[in-house]
Amino acid sequence: MIHGPNLNLLGEREPAVYGTGTLAQLDERIALLAVELALAVDCRQYNAEGAIIDALHTARGVYDAVILNPGAYAHYSYAIADAVSSIGLPVIEAHLSNIAGREPFRRVSVTAAACVGTVSGFGVSSYLLALRAAREILIK
Amino acid sequence: MIHGPNLNLLGEREPAVYGTGTLAQLDERIALLAVELALAVDCRQYNAEGAIIDALHTARGVYDAVILNPGAYAHYSYAIADAVSSIGLPVIEAHLSNIAGREPFRRVSVTAAACVGTVSGFGVSSYLLALRAAREILIK
Amino acid sequence: MIHGPNLNLLGEREPAVYGTGTLAQLDERIALLAVELALAVDCRQYNAEGAIIDALHTARGVYDAVILNPGAYAHYSYAIADAVSSIGLPVIEAHLSNIAGREPFRRVSVTAAACVGTVSGFGVSSYLLALRAAREILIK
Amino acid sequence: MIHGPNLNLLGEREPAVYGTGTLAQLDERIALLAVELALAVDCRQYNAEGAIIDALHTARGVYDAVILNPGAYAHYSYAIADAVSSIGLPVIEAHLSNIAGREPFRRVSVTAAACVGTVSGFGVSSYLLALRAAREILIK
Amino acid sequence: MIHGPNLNLLGEREPAVYGTGTLAQLDERIALLAVELALAVDCRQYNAEGAIIDALHTARGVYDAVILNPGAYAHYSYAIADAVSSIGLPVIEAHLSNIAGREPFRRVSVTAAACVGTVSGFGVSSYLLALRAAREILIK
Amino acid sequence: MIHGPNLNLLGEREPAVYGTGTLAQLDERIALLAVELALAVDCRQYNAEGAIIDALHTARGVYDAVILNPGAYAHYSYAIADAVSSIGLPVIEAHLSNIAGREPFRRVSVTAAACVGTVSGFGVSSYLLALRAAREILIK
Amino acid sequence: MIHGPNLNLLGEREPAVYGTGTLAQLDERIALLAVELALAVDCRQYNAEGAIIDALHTARGVYDAVILNPGAYAHYSYAIADAVSSIGLPVIEAHLSNIAGREPFRRVSVTAAACVGTVSGFGVSSYLLALRAAREILIK
Amino acid sequence: MIHGPNLNLLGEREPAVYGTGTLAQLDERIALLAVELALAVDCRQYNAEGAIIDALHTARGVYDAVILNPGAYAHYSYAIADAVSSIGLPVIEAHLSNIAGREPFRRVSVTAAACVGTVSGFGVSSYLLALRAAREILIK
Amino acid sequence: MIHGPNLNLLGEREPAVYGTGTLAQLDERIALLAVELALAVDCRQYNAEGAIIDALHTARGVYDAVILNPGAYAHYSYAIADAVSSIGLPVIEAHLSNIAGREPFRRVSVTAAACVGTVSGFGVSSYLLALRAAREILIK
Amino acid sequence: MIHGPNLNLLGEREPAVYGTGTLAQLDERIALLAVELALAVDCRQYNAEGAIIDALHTARGVYDAVILNPGAYAHYSYAIADAVSSIGLPVIEAHLSNIAGREPFRRVSVTAAACVGTVSGFGVSSYLLALRAAREILIK
Amino acid sequence: MIHGPNLNLLGEREPAVYGTGTLAQLDERIALLAVELALAVDCRQYNAEGAIIDALHTARGVYDAVILNPGAYAHYSYAIADAVSSIGLPVIEAHLSNIAGREPFRRVSVTAAACVGTVSGFGVSSYLLALRAAREILIK
Amino acid sequence: MIHGPNLNLLGEREPAVYGTGTLAQLDERIALLAVELALAVDCRQYNAEGAIIDALHTARGVYDAVILNPGAYAHYSYAIADAVSSIGLPVIEAHLSNIAGREPFRRVSVTAAACVGTVSGFGVSSYLLALRAAREILIK
Repeated sequence: MIHGPNLNLLGEREPAVYGTGTLAQLDERIALLAVELALAVDCRQYNAEGAIIDALHTARGVYDAVILNPGAYAHYSYAIADAVSSIGLPVIEAHLSNIAGREPFRRVSVTAAACVGTVSGFGVSSYLLALRAAREILIK
Repeated sequence: MIHGPNLNLLGEREPAVYGTGTLAQLDERIALLAVELALAVDCRQYNAEGAIIDALHTARGVYDAVILNPGAYAHYSYAIADAVSSIGLPVIEAHLSNIAGREPFRRVSVTAAACVGTVSGFGVSSYLLALRAAREILIK
Repeated sequence: MIHGPNLNLLGEREPAVYGTGTLAQLDERIALLAVELALAVDCRQYNAEGAIIDALHTARGVYDAVILNPGAYAHYSYAIADAVSSIGLPVIEAHLSNIAGREPFRRVSVTAAACVGTVSGFGVSSYLLALRAAREILIK
Repeated sequence: MIHGPNLNLLGEREPAVYGTGTLAQLDERIALLAVELALAVDCRQYNAEGAIIDALHTARGVYDAVILNPGAYAHYSYAIADAVSSIGLPVIEAHLSNIAGREPFRRVSVTAAACVGTVSGFGVSSYLLALRAAREILIK
Repeated sequence: MIHGPNLNLLGEREPAVYGTGTLAQLDERIALLAVELALAVDCRQYNAEGAIIDALHTARGVYDAVILNPGAYAHYSYAIADAVSSIGLPVIEAHLSNIAGREPFRRVSVTAAACVGTVSGFGVSSYLLALRAAREILIK
Repeated sequence: MIHGPNLNLLGEREPAVYGTGTLAQLDERIALLAVELALAVDCRQYNAEGAIIDALHTARGVYDAVILNPGAYAHYSYAIADAVSSIGLPVIEAHLSNIAGREPFRRVSVTAAACVGTVSGFGVSSYLLALRAAREILIK
Repeated sequence: MIHGPNLNLLGEREPAVYGTGTLAQLDERIALLAVELALAVDCRQYNAEGAIIDALHTARGVYDAVILNPGAYAHYSYAIADAVSSIGLPVIEAHLSNIAGREPFRRVSVTAAACVGTVSGFGVSSYLLALRAAREILIK
Repeated sequence: MIHGPNLNLLGEREPAVYGTGTLAQLDERIALLAVELALAVDCRQYNAEGAIIDALHTARGVYDAVILNPGAYAHYSYAIADAVSSIGLPVIEAHLSNIAGREPFRRVSVTAAACVGTVSGFGVSSYLLALRAAREILIK
Repeated sequence: MIHGPNLNLLGEREPAVYGTGTLAQLDERIALLAVELALAVDCRQYNAEGAIIDALHTARGVYDAVILNPGAYAHYSYAIADAVSSIGLPVIEAHLSNIAGREPFRRVSVTAAACVGTVSGFGVSSYLLALRAAREILIK
Repeated sequence: MIHGPNLNLLGEREPAVYGTGTLAQLDERIALLAVELALAVDCRQYNAEGAIIDALHTARGVYDAVILNPGAYAHYSYAIADAVSSIGLPVIEAHLSNIAGREPFRRVSVTAAACVGTVSGFGVSSYLLALRAAREILIK
Repeated sequence: MIHGPNLNLLGEREPAVYGTGTLAQLDERIALLAVELALAVDCRQYNAEGAIIDALHTARGVYDAVILNPGAYAHYSYAIADAVSSIGLPVIEAHLSNIAGREPFRRVSVTAAACVGTVSGFGVSSYLLALRAAREILIK
Repeated sequence: MIHGPNLNLLGEREPAVYGTGTLAQLDERIALLAVELALAVDCRQYNAEGAIIDALHTARGVYDAVILNPGAYAHYSYAIADAVSSIGLPVIEAHLSNIAGREPFRRVSVTAAACVGTVSGFGVSSYLLALRAAREILIK
């Protein structure tokens, strides 16, 4: 579970858009669902594009799938998109807000093009649904 | 649960992209999950843009939420987008395939802009996740 | 008088944009003005693009002019635009809201290009003014 | 009533597009309708963008509404659009010809975006309808 | 043989562009050639996008090939294009007029991208040539 | 019958796209059909844009119609388009492949804009159908 | 002879682009050639778009032709372009510099579209050649 | 100090965007700072593009620098940009609002391209900072 | 004097656009003016882009200047533009028609960007004026 | 005070664009002015996008305002723009060079859209003016 | 080794961009390296697009690889790109100058898309490196 | 020798595009050629944009030239491009794959615009050729 840039400020940053829960609370809810689904989950947050690429690389051989919220990098980081394509793991993109309904530059995600699928617009539930999606893919 | 154009051919149409299950099988899986989630669900399929608009309108006062796969209409039907905005119900967009990774015209969804959120790329699971998302929204 | 998609929800749909009067009330006001102008008017509402095309076709030989609010179809339905060009009757486009001041995709009307003229932004009065415009054209 | 650039040549300029009546005749017809509607109307014509801005400014406190035909300035004068936004009066845009059906650059009006609404395509009647529209707005 | 929107007005609609023969006469000529080529042909005309999709779907198992004049839908109906891709039959696009030489929006056909090939610009003969093309494909 | 650039390699060049028949075999099939239609046909192949323009010019007074496969020149040679317009003969554009379904740059043909019509996507049959189209035009 | 904005600074303004001669010297050379060609010429310079429109209007009935250097207005003043179209006189556009070889925004002239023709890039000679062009047109 | 179009309405025009102080109060604050910086400053306001060009021209030989708020002309007046380039004085562009964060058309300033630099977004302080910037440039 | 593609058909090709005089008559008029201006002129016509490049190359050391009508190559032949830049001679572009007022693709000339200047829109006189322009440049 | 990428090379990097003073000298001048304005200032320089985001985050609760020169990140880093929006502090963008007058890609700043305002083009003084702007904002 | 348009002028044409060595000297250096690499090399130069296509075609069966400098044709000749795809030989594109850093139109090479790879920006060495690249490909 | 993002996965990542050799093997081959060319080479790999900028900066005074494979950063990192411009060393861009023939976003390299030249498409040999190119530049 890789949280991208500015997500460390969750709960403080533009609560009208992103809600009032903190990242810690979000990770707790993810952990609870992971237990329910009998999955082991690690959550990381990175502001740096390179750190996200590193995290994707090191996921190989350690995890079976990745849930990635690339934040604003979704809209221009072809380097993260290449990393997603490179690692041979299913990667699921998750967004708290409904990016299709925001500023024009947020309507296209270049990183999602390299992912298995996307969940966006459901706040914390976007992550929980992505976790369920990951499990569906893994048990196939 | 509104299935858009060409989804009646599910299982026969481009199985490499859309899978081999039929629409009836898909609806059955949705029904099973609905029971599990204690939700009542109706599934409809329409090829016509106007019929989808009508279905959205009649959902008002009958259903609490709508899951919509607008198919290719996602990419140009501002009339369906307006219908979504008009009815005052939470609408969730679902796609079987990962539209972010297909032809350029499929990367922007104008109907999703009027929805609460989107789930795409997980095949049948896109619908199941959307159903869970609907329940999350309704129990809030 | 052809009302396009979602106008059946008038009064309920986004009242900040479209006002609180219903379509029935709107049609009543049109009828009153028609009497005043000594015109016979029929009002229809259709959500389907094909139904609007059919309605335009059947207007030939029955009506002397058409007032059309194509709703969101205004911005992409070249098929309706072709129907307007095909029927040889004066068609006047009317919009409740001021489409020039809304989202970018609403600033160009491809159907208006085939019409005689346009009235937009005056709420119910857009229709009343269009009716007067029709009368001006017919008495010339 | 502000007539924009080249409208002083009305009746002589491209009569196939703009008709054969002169500006004086147009103003006379406006005056007649104004009497009928119990409105006081002043008509001015300016070729200069700055003069139109000045006229809009001086309308504050003197008139209750403005009818503006910005001519070709409609398509690029953000300065006039700002003036319309600045004065706090309802401004109605009128065009003799149906700008939606002419050259591509004429299909978007940046000044109309700041106005209440638009009437275009009905020749002299565009102004008369705009006058009625103004009265509707004022008596609300 | 599926005729798209506004083709029911053939012979009356813009004869300078589309010729003066009626749709019935066109269908008669098609029938004559079909006899000559020992093919069985059915001709349908629909104004609605959804009806064209339905017709394409029902062609499966009934016909060996489809000739489609999508009219203006050619330029924006990705839903019809998807239907063409879905049915697994050879579909041939035919246009009466030479769409490459008309308004810019008519120069690209998104439905033709899903077809086997296109014949355009020869009036009634476009259909007759498309019928011959269908036969060539079927006898291969 | 003017074959454009790279068509001399027919049968060897990308057979998945263009088929395995050679240009000589293609010309033979054209000749056979010409006999059947009682037409005299000459076939030429040129790689140079200027040679195609010359060939179009010299067709005046010698031939009654031209069938032109401009190859890739179709997508940028305004000089050939001007030549087509200049010679006052009906010119028909033919393509072996379905250019509407290939790379974006191949979806618009600037030379077709100056032609009578287009046949594309039927392999060798594109030429045979074009020949029939030419005959239809000539006997009118 | 209408000189547009900033031409009053000729000789002082960016001499690398526009040369070192002053506007007075330019007008003198024009006057000399006018005498040689037996033409009467008046030269005016205006910085304001509206003043140029006024000058074009007043040219009607007074002059037989206009030579216009619209300066930077060439690239966006549809109002001047409309004035050129309105007055029914031959107008010739002249530019000191070769606008085709400068910044991208200078490569298209919207005012030239309404003129008879253009001369650009020859410094002072652009005007002298335009004067000769005017004479050619008038003696036809 | 040249104030552009609509700035005469300062304090009355869209106070949420432009603040509630009047132009006179703004000029007073500029005058105070000018005294503090030992500079002589004149303030002018013009609604007309041509008047701004004239003012820039007459600044030559009279002033050592110009502070220019071109208002909406910033986004399309290449004629003002040329005037800035022509006069050989340092010109500083100032905007009350943060144009980078407003409508898309306001994000590029074509006049700023010809200026020394820009200060925008600080309300009245934009002018005061521009004045300090001018002094820095002059004392170098 | 290099005449580009299709100019050999002058007088026969679209006379409404290009006039009824032939190329031979045009060359004669050029020759007459050349005598008057005491210049030696050779006129060539080529349909091929490569031939025009060759002709420009061989002009070095033989001629002092070139007048070039690149025809439709003006709008896409960067190879001719490079040839013009390469030869170190003044090249003047001439067009019979007013390219600024024709189809959008004709409004930008990429070859003119490499030339000294352009004369367009005056029919045969475009060449005569270009000849005078060449002389002006040479006697400087 | 956050200096973005490549500013550590100040004085050595393209001195024609960025001046010859070093970053240390720049920071010294900032420190001097800070003393004069009774402000405490810290200066940091980062080449990495993620480090700039981190620095913005840690500014919360420590500083009252941020002055940011995002360097080239200004033109594509939506992640930095989001960080600016997230931290709830006034951020002022400063550029040494006049970005409005450089390459096209530098003319729009996506990070400035999230800032309070921008100062650009005055070299070292851009920072000093930004510091004064910060003080104005803080004392309000 | 195919040299494209204007390369015959090497050493004389814009030496600041292309260097001062002649084409003969370049060919000599290529020959020397060919000897060193034990390769047989032929060098040709063509200004005509069609001649380059012909040369590519005739390379089949004669050469094992082609090094092509298409000059300006690189940016628009889809016909040459098709020829490269047609011949089934490895083709390497070489440019003397660094096309990525020149005018926008030179930044995309449509012919390179059909080649194995590209070497650009190293002057004469671009060819020498391309020759080594060819050898690497051939010995694999 | 700077390897950009995802190149650490070489040999594992999309071998169809990037080959099966590892980065260590690649560096070994580079080292071998360096010995042959009597050059000292250091190879580094970084996933982070900022780390690449740092590496470019520290190359000053230590290395005589840099070979850079910016990976996907090539297509949007203006910050790396600025770093290349800043350091005053020759930088050569190398790509394993032929970026001109891949997805549209990969066809333009903004970092190459700041480099001396580019080698792309030859797999490992791209680096070896770039090394030779560096040597050619250094011995000049």
